[in-house]
Amino acid sequence: MSENYCFGVDVGGTTIKLAVLSTKGDILKKWEIPTNKSEQGRYIPQDIHKTIDSAQTELALHKSNVLGIGVGAPGFVDTKTGYIYEAVNIGWKNFDFGKQLANLSGYPVWVDNDANLAALGENWLGAGGGVENLIAVTLGTGVGGGIIANGKIISGANGMAAEIGHMTVIRSGGAACNCGKSGCLETETSATGIVRKAKEVLSEYPSSSLNSFTSITAKDVFQAAADHDEAASKVIASVIDTLGLTIANLAIAINPNKIVIGGGVSKAGVQLLQPLKEAFRTYALTRTAEACTFEIAELGNDAGVIGGAYLVKENL
Amino acid sequence: MSENYCFGVDVGGTTIKLAVLSTKGDILKKWEIPTNKSEQGRYIPQDIHKTIDSAQTELALHKSNVLGIGVGAPGFVDTKTGYIYEAVNIGWKNFDFGKQLANLSGYPVWVDNDANLAALGENWLGAGGGVENLIAVTLGTGVGGGIIANGKIISGANGMAAEIGHMTVIRSGGAACNCGKSGCLETETSATGIVRKAKEVLSEYPSSSLNSFTSITAKDVFQAAADHDEAASKVIASVIDTLGLTIANLAIAINPNKIVIGGGVSKAGVQLLQPLKEAFRTYALTRTAEACTFEIAELGNDAGVIGGAYLVKENL
Repeated sequence: MSENYCFGVDVGGTTIKLAVLSTKGDILKKWEIPTNKSEQGRYIPQDIHKTIDSAQTELALHKSNVLGIGVGAPGFVDTKTGYIYEAVNIGWKNFDFGKQLANLSGYPVWVDNDANLAALGENWLGAGGGVENLIAVTLGTGVGGGIIANGKIISGANGMAAEIGHMTVIRSGGAACNCGKSGCLETETSATGIVRKAKEVLSEYPSSSLNSFTSITAKDVFQAAADHDEAASKVIASVIDTLGLTIANLAIAINPNKIVIGGGVSKAGVQLLQPLKEAFRTYALTRTAEACTFEIAELGNDAGVIGGAYLVKENL
Repeated sequence: MSENYCFGVDVGGTTIKLAVLSTKGDILKKWEIPTNKSEQGRYIPQDIHKTIDSAQTELALHKSNVLGIGVGAPGFVDTKTGYIYEAVNIGWKNFDFGKQLANLSGYPVWVDNDANLAALGENWLGAGGGVENLIAVTLGTGVGGGIIANGKIISGANGMAAEIGHMTVIRSGGAACNCGKSGCLETETSATGIVRKAKEVLSEYPSSSLNSFTSITAKDVFQAAADHDEAASKVIASVIDTLGLTIANLAIAINPNKIVIGGGVSKAGVQLLQPLKEAFRTYALTRTAEACTFEIAELGNDAGVIGGAYLVKENL
């Protein structure tokens, strides 16, 4: 029997990442093209079609061995039809992306939120290891998430599931969030949130090493905390406690086998993970905590395209 | 083609409820037997087998038309095998309940947590209306939950999913919970929690009508709040805000089509539901809130046996 292949696509604000994988999980090719955002991104379906067509020719893949295309988009997606309600970074609004790409390519197309596909990718070929129940948390400029339950990604009633960055963690008086609410997980534990929190406390700590920085990054705050800077330590402890509490609450709902932490902030590694596990155990039920392990994401920027390919495989 | 039937069983601390339903959802018979808790509940599998056997004879059901038995248990269950890790109210501990009942009856047996089955039941024949994504919240002596995603109940890695009563809602200084933690949703929003919170504030409100009660119930607190008692109003407002926040955070993760509120406290009806929806909208993302409606549970104590029958239907 000849091998079958799936295309995975991850549409970002600057580049579109692509990969073609065998259903066994071998990556045949991985590449990217620039995101053409002109005219509200209307040329993106044909850009994707063309580059996939070229790759197929280059790799001499027979059309009958290509099972379809799985696409991650940074926004609100109707996963049943691939219709994009809104993807602000791309310019899409009420755009029948999935249908257009299917018509152009002749392949079945599945579309989901990019964070959800990253979770699927990590579970297929990365830190998840193919578990039935997984929570993926991406700590970057914002905070994203993906939840797998009963072996399937949760997309929800209108593609909004796992928007965990917008769980409210400060009931009143929290910082304003881009979503229009305040006190969201994202405002407290993203890289941006860590920097804001550090800046907020610095005036109370005139001797903090962070005062000498002209521009502070989350990495700087972690480094200063590692060097026992009091202000930085206080901020990192607060961030990790909030994160542990929120992940514990999520885990009480989902009862995952694995919790995978990714994104730029996860590069803090054990400095993040060790106290995070402790905070998690404080707030989780014992049996819930016993059932799961914490892992740092392994696939980096490839998680999305790998998850896209998996979405095809899973739906066939 | 002749109709097929499923038995649903709901094992409680005092009675075992049973029902036999057609796969179309018609209830043929509904009854209960006392729970024999002697010798750590070891006789329960044969009690269930005997009463199901009698019902089958009485209803003249042909064995080949009975698809199986679905059982809800109040405790920690391995849903794959029907093994009970622990069900404190029954006396079971490390008990191979599912296997025993399957051997005795000759039917396939599925077991899940009772709150999960109540959610399945409500979604099949009650307030859920067969949606793909549902959150059920039971506000009684404790707070229980059931979550349906992608049309399936979430049981999780070790049967602990949807234990939402133990999500932490007060980070520090909250009341002690039976689970060993503190500040759980259950300590703040169960009937028991409502009474405790009322008692805590009464000394500050000497003119409160609740001071004249020798024993206060949650219903009394709701009634006093409806009569504009200041202490009771304050307690109910705080309970509903906490509940709205927690359900919003859950909904941000699950993105349900419906949120079904059941249990004794739900009898407060619109006095609960109307401000709960407002609190929910404060803390939920707009698109998440738009996707879902709130409903009061419809099946009462029958939800569990109906969900048990559905579990059989779903697994075949």
